[in-house]
Amino acid sequence: MHVGHWFGNVLNMVRLQDEHEAFYFIADWHMLTTHYDRTAELPGFVRELVLDLLAAGIDPNRATLYRQSDVPEVAELTLLLGMITPLGWLERVPTYKERLRDLSERESASYGLLGYPLLQTVDIVIVKGELVPVGEDQVPHLELAREIVRRFNRLYGEVLVEPQALLSPSPLVPGSDGRKMSKSFDNAIWVRDDEEAIRARVRSFITDPKKIRRGDPGRPEICPIFALHRLFSEDILAWTEENCRSGALGCVECKGNLADRIVEYFRPFRERRAELEANPGIADEVLAAGRARVRPIVEDTMKAVRDAMRFA
Amino acid sequence: MHVGHWFGNVLNMVRLQDEHEAFYFIADWHMLTTHYDRTAELPGFVRELVLDLLAAGIDPNRATLYRQSDVPEVAELTLLLGMITPLGWLERVPTYKERLRDLSERESASYGLLGYPLLQTVDIVIVKGELVPVGEDQVPHLELAREIVRRFNRLYGEVLVEPQALLSPSPLVPGSDGRKMSKSFDNAIWVRDDEEAIRARVRSFITDPKKIRRGDPGRPEICPIFALHRLFSEDILAWTEENCRSGALGCVECKGNLADRIVEYFRPFRERRAELEANPGIADEVLAAGRARVRPIVEDTMKAVRDAMRFA
Repeated sequence: MHVGHWFGNVLNMVRLQDEHEAFYFIADWHMLTTHYDRTAELPGFVRELVLDLLAAGIDPNRATLYRQSDVPEVAELTLLLGMITPLGWLERVPTYKERLRDLSERESASYGLLGYPLLQTVDIVIVKGELVPVGEDQVPHLELAREIVRRFNRLYGEVLVEPQALLSPSPLVPGSDGRKMSKSFDNAIWVRDDEEAIRARVRSFITDPKKIRRGDPGRPEICPIFALHRLFSEDILAWTEENCRSGALGCVECKGNLADRIVEYFRPFRERRAELEANPGIADEVLAAGRARVRPIVEDTMKAVRDAMRFA
Repeated sequence: MHVGHWFGNVLNMVRLQDEHEAFYFIADWHMLTTHYDRTAELPGFVRELVLDLLAAGIDPNRATLYRQSDVPEVAELTLLLGMITPLGWLERVPTYKERLRDLSERESASYGLLGYPLLQTVDIVIVKGELVPVGEDQVPHLELAREIVRRFNRLYGEVLVEPQALLSPSPLVPGSDGRKMSKSFDNAIWVRDDEEAIRARVRSFITDPKKIRRGDPGRPEICPIFALHRLFSEDILAWTEENCRSGALGCVECKGNLADRIVEYFRPFRERRAELEANPGIADEVLAAGRARVRPIVEDTMKAVRDAMRFA
């Protein structure tokens, strides 16, 4: 979990668990669409993500937190909905087309990669999801989910709930190279990083290339460090912008100010996470409880689906 | 079940249950790849097919006869293997390419239709199938299954059994219009047809178009009626060929001879089937017993798969 995830998803998840009956899951089957050759990392990845979410404030007594592969009916419903999903609907999904632009990807694109948005559809409808928090880039996926649901209901009767998008704030979070913060770009600040790692990563960020030394005027609007100040430094945001533009503030000092605030911002998170680490069984316990809570809902959905399709 | 199925599959199935530990299943999920809009017919279809198989001589105490959708792990393994199956492997399957030649099919081809040979692969490997009885046209599907198995074993360890083709006799069985006998061509003789229906269907068969009336010489090698004589009329085969060629035998008489033999050939089948009909619960009982027998094997396969992929 990095700072991009935090502001793009996790804060929304924490907020929404108070406003709605929330279902959150670890998408371990989805991981296979890209990392099928790295499943040795799966158990550790799942455990770390659960601890990150708990430390971030996801309350497993309010939200239902479960693991996708703990609900094998997800695969069954994926198979069934795949039978009524035209290939063209999947091939037109923008994220898929972007992936295929790279020829090496096209050679190796798997059947599962093409079916990614179908699997997402099932993740939603199997728990009767009504609202799905999405960023702008996920809107086409949700539109596809709605189309598949409408098709199912037209063919077999009104069984599945048609989900609505809940457009959620998702600020731009750049990484150290100025591109979108992403694990695959190796440009991320991780929420679990200790103070030293945070400071080192912040120092490595690019800034306005025309501002070589203190005294040169800077352009905060193109500086990834300033983009992060917007998220962490309300107390000095106006001051930073003014003194960057005037040149009075050098990038080294400016980065130090940001690092101070990131270190402080995630201090409670790091402390809660350290406490959680002391309880080695907690991730499994939380996932087992989530599985138990999601099962009756999933079974209810699947009974209705099988009845409607005459597989009862 | 029509006469084409009987000679293409069912006789092999009956024979193989004595020679091997046989697994046969009702592919009700596969039906969705083409008939997703006709699932109302599913329960009746499944029941009739079970009775047909029992009447044909499938012995549920020797062979394991189960229903595909009774084994939800089939969907789970399909999802998992789909993640390591390149789209190109599926798109190159000849039967799929044939389907897509028809433009209307291409518009409506579903994700599930493209995945048909993947689902077949799972049907085989989930019961650790070693030998798969196939006709020539199914050899590419089995080659694909072997490729997927090898890929899985290379990635995750030697877990899945690589199946071998068991090329099985599959005589050409033409229908009433001279094309391959098929339900979709409405040209079939059904093994369950009563005497009157068999005679009517045989009368409707085309014959050599150059043989208009008795006295005209015929060409048995292009006559679908003679193709069926090869299957049913060993006692008069040489006589039929000779007298067709000479013209002495008219088509009406020749068809009557064939109908007599088909009626007799399937008489024991019809009688066994009538007995089975008297026991309305038998199809469900057989499928429940088959499900119970296949479960431990499936669970064993899935445990090994999940362990190897680190989903344990």
